[in-house]
Amino acid sequence: MKISELAAQTGIPLATVKFYQREGLLPPGEKSAPNQAEYGEAHVRRLNLIRALMGVGGLGIAATKEVIDAFESVSLGWAFGVAQRAISGASRPQDPDPSPTSRKRVVALVNEQGWNVEDANPGIDIVARALDGFAAMGLDVPPDYLASFASAAAEAAEADMKLLEDLPNPEQAAEVMVVGTVLGDPLFAGLRRIAQEHASRDHFPAEEPR
Amino acid sequence: MKISELAAQTGIPLATVKFYQREGLLPPGEKSAPNQAEYGEAHVRRLNLIRALMGVGGLGIAATKEVIDAFESVSLGWAFGVAQRAISGASRPQDPDPSPTSRKRVVALVNEQGWNVEDANPGIDIVARALDGFAAMGLDVPPDYLASFASAAAEAAEADMKLLEDLPNPEQAAEVMVVGTVLGDPLFAGLRRIAQEHASRDHFPAEEPR
Repeated sequence: MKISELAAQTGIPLATVKFYQREGLLPPGEKSAPNQAEYGEAHVRRLNLIRALMGVGGLGIAATKEVIDAFESVSLGWAFGVAQRAISGASRPQDPDPSPTSRKRVVALVNEQGWNVEDANPGIDIVARALDGFAAMGLDVPPDYLASFASAAAEAAEADMKLLEDLPNPEQAAEVMVVGTVLGDPLFAGLRRIAQEHASRDHFPAEEPR
Repeated sequence: MKISELAAQTGIPLATVKFYQREGLLPPGEKSAPNQAEYGEAHVRRLNLIRALMGVGGLGIAATKEVIDAFESVSLGWAFGVAQRAISGASRPQDPDPSPTSRKRVVALVNEQGWNVEDANPGIDIVARALDGFAAMGLDVPPDYLASFASAAAEAAEADMKLLEDLPNPEQAAEVMVVGTVLGDPLFAGLRRIAQEHASRDHFPAEEPR
């Protein structure tokens, strides 16, 4: 199909499609005439991926490009780590280093859980920075709280793996891995807010606003 | 203490403290002389809260103000819902409405889980938008996946309630509720990335990069 048809099929404005192409997010079509190129299903899928990452995922152009580059350059088994790194690193480049105390605490938690991961796993710094945030409020997060969150995370991660294994179309695996990592965060955050409201009715019986 | 001492004690630059005050994030001190005001522990706690929300929590000035206004104006039992709304609404004002299909699916999930929540719970739209993101990738999220994430969210929410109940200093409850809601998201997201790496070693044995 022509680039204008590609835009029409995905519902993305032609100018935006051309912009993604200039930025290197969308590969060029196959030249069919000196001034014309042919686009296919792979381009449609790529545009859907870009939309998912930039829309619901909230990534900027640079982070989206980093994620796409990562999973273009590596095999499927490896893409997880690379995509995780790109997503986590690129989305919050301004984050400060976490404190050594919090980082040590996360490493201890990882060991307690029997999790076998590399030191470079980006989750370690993300968790350590969150602990620093609680500490800045004068709150030392209790071990049970961390253990509950770790157990919840393990359950979600198992579901993530099962989602990939059961894909009807295995060619999608790399894309689903990336999108699932990005979209799983708001999916969980939203469910947690719903579950909090439910749980708070038990734990903190309603009071009228004063 | 004087405003300069408040800045020194919290480690926040004096100009920033004054900026927060102009923006209405920090209440004025008690006038002690025509050109001088006295600040206390409540101001220190407020500055720590602002730092946690804007730093690790990633909220902007407007969202931070909305959260602070919310929990200043209501009783503790009510603060949860209001703070949730302010946090979720203000942090992503540009989000589109989710599709009716996805929203219906989330409401059905809430009913299946036996969760008793208001229609206005902001988590419903957050989850529905995440489902829209998967759908844009041509992926219909399987019911097991949603159920696993819901069960993980319930576990985290129970931990959230226990954290509040066990606070050594109950005066902190409103602040911890707000900060915990904001910081719990990256805490979980980081742990999920760690747990994913661990789980992926089982499910997808390592391949070398090609």
